[in-house]
Amino acid sequence: MDDLRAAFPVFERLAYLNAGTNGPVPHVAVEAAATELRQQADTGRGDQAFFEERVLAPVDELRRRVAALLACEPDELALTDSTTGGVNAVLSMLELGPDDEVLTSDEEHPGVLAPLGAGMGRRGFEVRSVPFDQLPAEVGPRTRLVAASHVSWITGRVVDGAALAAAGAPVLLDGAQGLGAVPVDVRALGCDFYAASGQKWLCGPNGLGYLFLRAERIGELVPAWAGYGSLAHTERPLDLVLHEDARRFEAGVVAPHQSAWALAALDVLEGFGIADVHERAAQLAAHLASELEERGLNVAPRGNSTLVSWESPDPAADTVALREQGFVVRHLPGRPYVRASVGAWTSEKELEGLLALAA
Amino acid sequence: MDDLRAAFPVFERLAYLNAGTNGPVPHVAVEAAATELRQQADTGRGDQAFFEERVLAPVDELRRRVAALLACEPDELALTDSTTGGVNAVLSMLELGPDDEVLTSDEEHPGVLAPLGAGMGRRGFEVRSVPFDQLPAEVGPRTRLVAASHVSWITGRVVDGAALAAAGAPVLLDGAQGLGAVPVDVRALGCDFYAASGQKWLCGPNGLGYLFLRAERIGELVPAWAGYGSLAHTERPLDLVLHEDARRFEAGVVAPHQSAWALAALDVLEGFGIADVHERAAQLAAHLASELEERGLNVAPRGNSTLVSWESPDPAADTVALREQGFVVRHLPGRPYVRASVGAWTSEKELEGLLALAA
Repeated sequence: MDDLRAAFPVFERLAYLNAGTNGPVPHVAVEAAATELRQQADTGRGDQAFFEERVLAPVDELRRRVAALLACEPDELALTDSTTGGVNAVLSMLELGPDDEVLTSDEEHPGVLAPLGAGMGRRGFEVRSVPFDQLPAEVGPRTRLVAASHVSWITGRVVDGAALAAAGAPVLLDGAQGLGAVPVDVRALGCDFYAASGQKWLCGPNGLGYLFLRAERIGELVPAWAGYGSLAHTERPLDLVLHEDARRFEAGVVAPHQSAWALAALDVLEGFGIADVHERAAQLAAHLASELEERGLNVAPRGNSTLVSWESPDPAADTVALREQGFVVRHLPGRPYVRASVGAWTSEKELEGLLALAA
Repeated sequence: MDDLRAAFPVFERLAYLNAGTNGPVPHVAVEAAATELRQQADTGRGDQAFFEERVLAPVDELRRRVAALLACEPDELALTDSTTGGVNAVLSMLELGPDDEVLTSDEEHPGVLAPLGAGMGRRGFEVRSVPFDQLPAEVGPRTRLVAASHVSWITGRVVDGAALAAAGAPVLLDGAQGLGAVPVDVRALGCDFYAASGQKWLCGPNGLGYLFLRAERIGELVPAWAGYGSLAHTERPLDLVLHEDARRFEAGVVAPHQSAWALAALDVLEGFGIADVHERAAQLAAHLASELEERGLNVAPRGNSTLVSWESPDPAADTVALREQGFVVRHLPGRPYVRASVGAWTSEKELEGLLALAA
């Protein structure tokens, strides 16, 4: 673990426990990105070599490696700008109207709820919000889509993917607190769509996300937002000859310093071992939760995840006070919780320090 | 001019004449971005100071400074990921259906045509494509929107904004070859929407674009793609309480290294003087065009812009051959042209070299 931890400069200065917002940044990722910045300045961004070697090749590699983390095919993975971007992409493509219901939960992020709010206003579908744990039981005959978290950003609870899939409606999971944090197998989860972040538990840059779309769905779906990247043939764009794979959902270009950062961060995590990253993080988080409870704090009901939320009379003030002591956690708008994000990079000593201050 | 040119390392190595794809990158922009990369690694990306000082403050500054370049209010400017993103944002918001026509031209980029292709398939509106110069005359009673270039990426022709506005339909301009290249005054152009790039003539990073929306339109428009950034109140995202200004069209977060790059590049251009940047580039481009014609080449009919396209029997082969001689230009899919992008940073010597090889 010391090797993993030493890869992240922030831990020399802070007890950084907020990967659920943005992950810690490895030193090698900064170096890789800086090299690509210099390269763009030195040799430009406008010839064939730039596009083939600096833009497309790293994106192909990223697609392969992130697909492996999701247990899907590279053809099923679109690069997006964020989890929110993935959710918007899916919602704007599906034919949903006034007779349809989208089922969601009471623990969702604005990255799911804002797209749903915009869609219901525009297209008249209904959004029904139910307690997170009751999602599978609440799927009804009008439910055309379930849009909910894989791992709740509020409590760290984990959705019962198998039960949800068995309920029969298509499922879009918000994987912002899933990918990189816990093992993900999109087929075992039974989802049609899985939207995830690059900048959180994968320690990549802001501005890069991932969207899994089940192969069987891709051919029937036309992106509502299209661009140069969506097209298999670019000479007659109005004819919209789309890529046959998930690239049809990609409109833009990933800057080389962004992809280089993402790849270097994956190197760090894979160097430690992704399974070990997941296992150690979950163990430490469970340890923190039980220690907080032992000290009399109310910990929000959670699952086998990397998030631990506990009640506080003033979570915002607690967050500020902890920051002054060098501990970076967060509070959650409109909720009674302070939330710590525990990674494989977290030390036992940090958790002891947090316990001493929080409890 | 020597000072301006010296700001860009690429000119030490190449005759870089492809800002119409991606602008040259100033050395100070690389330094500014690298500093922000290190800062993110050193102090993390998860506390209040990060969001206020590293994310929001530079975005506010960028909004103010780019709004000044467009002659609009900062409240009328949304940051996007690209010109394509801005076009998609506008098209997906407007209520267009089977009775409506969108007028476009025969010189449009996939960043306009792919969104139109996706929209016509989904919502049944008609897209009518007419010669670029005839756009104002072709606006008809069913025309609900004109979606066309400010400056044609094919020929460098410039739209007659006043005539287009006088024709009476709302206008969305693709400003990819406008902003930073030629003077832009969105009110004089008479457009409701102006979507532009950060990475071309403003020399910013890939992944950053700008969208002007006329103030009178903003309140009535609900983004089809929404997110945390769109919301004025984040506690009940499903209620979609949107920002009253153009921030409602922003779903995501701009990474600090991206905004720092963009701001540093603006420093370079503004240090030379934006009006001088425009004037010198236009003069040099006009000079190149007339010299090419004098040498017997067919130059595409162009306007007072920074693009010069000339006919070639094999534009792709010419582009490769020129690259081998250190000249970066491009060809255009399905068109008979080689295109050079001329900036204020271009030297007379480069143009002489290009003329010697091309003619």
